[in-house]
Amino acid sequence: MDTPRPSTEIDRSQPPAIRVLMMPRETNAWGTIFGGIILSYIDQAGAVEAVEMGCEHVVTVAMKEVEFHKPVFVGDLVSFHTRLMGVGKTSISVKVIVEAQRRLDSDERVIVTEADVTYVNVGPDGRPRPVEECRKRKSKR
Amino acid sequence: MDTPRPSTEIDRSQPPAIRVLMMPRETNAWGTIFGGIILSYIDQAGAVEAVEMGCEHVVTVAMKEVEFHKPVFVGDLVSFHTRLMGVGKTSISVKVIVEAQRRLDSDERVIVTEADVTYVNVGPDGRPRPVEECRKRKSKR
Amino acid sequence: MDTPRPSTEIDRSQPPAIRVLMMPRETNAWGTIFGGIILSYIDQAGAVEAVEMGCEHVVTVAMKEVEFHKPVFVGDLVSFHTRLMGVGKTSISVKVIVEAQRRLDSDERVIVTEADVTYVNVGPDGRPRPVEECRKRKSKR
Amino acid sequence: MDTPRPSTEIDRSQPPAIRVLMMPRETNAWGTIFGGIILSYIDQAGAVEAVEMGCEHVVTVAMKEVEFHKPVFVGDLVSFHTRLMGVGKTSISVKVIVEAQRRLDSDERVIVTEADVTYVNVGPDGRPRPVEECRKRKSKR
Amino acid sequence: MDTPRPSTEIDRSQPPAIRVLMMPRETNAWGTIFGGIILSYIDQAGAVEAVEMGCEHVVTVAMKEVEFHKPVFVGDLVSFHTRLMGVGKTSISVKVIVEAQRRLDSDERVIVTEADVTYVNVGPDGRPRPVEECRKRKSKR
Amino acid sequence: MDTPRPSTEIDRSQPPAIRVLMMPRETNAWGTIFGGIILSYIDQAGAVEAVEMGCEHVVTVAMKEVEFHKPVFVGDLVSFHTRLMGVGKTSISVKVIVEAQRRLDSDERVIVTEADVTYVNVGPDGRPRPVEECRKRKSKR
Repeated sequence: MDTPRPSTEIDRSQPPAIRVLMMPRETNAWGTIFGGIILSYIDQAGAVEAVEMGCEHVVTVAMKEVEFHKPVFVGDLVSFHTRLMGVGKTSISVKVIVEAQRRLDSDERVIVTEADVTYVNVGPDGRPRPVEECRKRKSKR
Repeated sequence: MDTPRPSTEIDRSQPPAIRVLMMPRETNAWGTIFGGIILSYIDQAGAVEAVEMGCEHVVTVAMKEVEFHKPVFVGDLVSFHTRLMGVGKTSISVKVIVEAQRRLDSDERVIVTEADVTYVNVGPDGRPRPVEECRKRKSKR
Repeated sequence: MDTPRPSTEIDRSQPPAIRVLMMPRETNAWGTIFGGIILSYIDQAGAVEAVEMGCEHVVTVAMKEVEFHKPVFVGDLVSFHTRLMGVGKTSISVKVIVEAQRRLDSDERVIVTEADVTYVNVGPDGRPRPVEECRKRKSKR
Repeated sequence: MDTPRPSTEIDRSQPPAIRVLMMPRETNAWGTIFGGIILSYIDQAGAVEAVEMGCEHVVTVAMKEVEFHKPVFVGDLVSFHTRLMGVGKTSISVKVIVEAQRRLDSDERVIVTEADVTYVNVGPDGRPRPVEECRKRKSKR
Repeated sequence: MDTPRPSTEIDRSQPPAIRVLMMPRETNAWGTIFGGIILSYIDQAGAVEAVEMGCEHVVTVAMKEVEFHKPVFVGDLVSFHTRLMGVGKTSISVKVIVEAQRRLDSDERVIVTEADVTYVNVGPDGRPRPVEECRKRKSKR
Repeated sequence: MDTPRPSTEIDRSQPPAIRVLMMPRETNAWGTIFGGIILSYIDQAGAVEAVEMGCEHVVTVAMKEVEFHKPVFVGDLVSFHTRLMGVGKTSISVKVIVEAQRRLDSDERVIVTEADVTYVNVGPDGRPRPVEECRKRKSKR
């Protein structure tokens, strides 16, 4: 609805965390892609960022400032880009920027949605664990 | 993760907007219900509130302060309660409170997630229309 | 097809067992909601009633007198109401009444389907167990 | 739950109307196949019988005497056999017999579910049309 | 796209390995059935043939010469016929022939896709095991 | 099953055509990701390559040399990389290389599947059209 920020925010030297082609089974009653589908991929995309930091198991604790700028259509190729925004003792904040390439004009790229998602690193017992442990695990690989 | 607010916030004189039984196909890699599934039902629940105000077609423009307090499990009966929070010229804000009844103890009810969602009323051309029109339509029924 | 009975049968002091918004992915070849989807929610709704009696695990053994009165459409908000019809030594009979609120006129409520479903309470070995045990479990909570 | 009737009821000179391999996404909270999935295929199987009579569009109006004899498991190959039971002026009754071949012993075949389903032949306006028209259409092919 | 071979290749004395009715949720952006859906059923159909030989667990190792001759439409009844093509020490090759019955003219049957699929029989450790073991298991039943 | 070729084949200066996180609902009876799911994404990935050449509507006509080297697991992040292999008068051949990042060790990347897929560019009538037209359309953008 409002004016999307410039797409220069996306770091194109990195592949998107998630990239999918939208299908008819993902539509809402008005024929555009159901927002819940976009939110599901946003949740996965942020978790990919956390796992790439070395975390084995994270849980989503909050989503803030999800803004739906434009509708997504069947046939759109949709990329979910992530950027690490902050790391707390046990939590990780990730910005997810969602960009659609319209089917009939693959050069047109539109930022359709943005969200800030916070994850907490947890142990096998489901309790918060320091993010520092993710980093140590990663450096040992 | 943090302490959920008391469930007295839920208006039990009204049926939940959405109420579903969670199934294995809705799990994530760790065996609990995938957050994207909960977000999808939150998006629908808020829209139900807007439609009940008389709006024919609304689009989700923002989600704020989504907080995941507790995990949801396969077999949980999950209710999505809504409360109208505000009405702008063309927009409607709805609070969605998600409550799970655990399978093996149907008396235990836990608030698992909360979210504030904003919708915009749109016309057949997809452009914003005054919410006032929803109300007039409803009063004529 | 035939004339639905009056909706006064529904006990509106209780929330519906299941309540969902119908989506395009649930349509049949003719564009209305696939009957199998409605039957799936009926099966869940009756089981919710049995679980609320205190049963931990029930299996569906029979469905009788399923009557599809009216089609269900994409965008309908559909409520699955239940009423306990009878309790045998190990079995529970539940009537499920399915009511649709049409999208474009949320005051119109139509009973679209009705069904009588029978469940059997089973133990961890899958064998029938007295329903009395469900009640004892519930009273101890 | 009760003793299934002998499988000699199945006309093996005809292919099953529907035949599917059960997958993990179709399970219920207890790990067996969700009854709603079986009901969905029963609804389709009976409609296949009606379409083979020459009807272009049928709607399900009733299901009677659905009996679930045995659970269905992930990996089972499940066949939905049909038998025409009766033809009214605008309606067609079909018996559907559901037989599972267990994964680890493909010679074991078990009748797991049975149902009587009634369909009504409808025209483009959704109103009942004589079944006789289906037969005429078929004979002209 | 090219001319399909005559359907006399299908052994109609055997039921199809898989037989399904195509639904709207299985369409691609152009409204016909998504090729991935057809490929999924082909993979299952070939595995059914291997399981019927007595194998407990097979994995797909290759698909060759998949040819899509014709589109598949919503409402088509699609049969996946199989024919054993060869047996190696640990592998089984199966030809899958996919035939669609068009909804509005159930006498028209069209071969829409063909594929050669190779499976390997594996043990509980996931390593290849001689196909001979499948046969012995079957003969003991 | 056989030894995968080195991953140097993948052009990492380009983002993958499709990239997804595998979920429990996509498993087969043995708990690994169902091959049909992988084939579905391969089909989409190749089509993305064709659309990026400027084609508006392509249909899959053949898949050759699909080789499944390794299983895919729940939680794997799977990238579908494409490479243009050849262009005929109306057809486009694309190699799809599927690479999995294992969940618990995000540095381990394994080529799990490879396939050669052929698409035909079609017009609004579904008939083959020269690929040259895709290129002209693209250059005008």
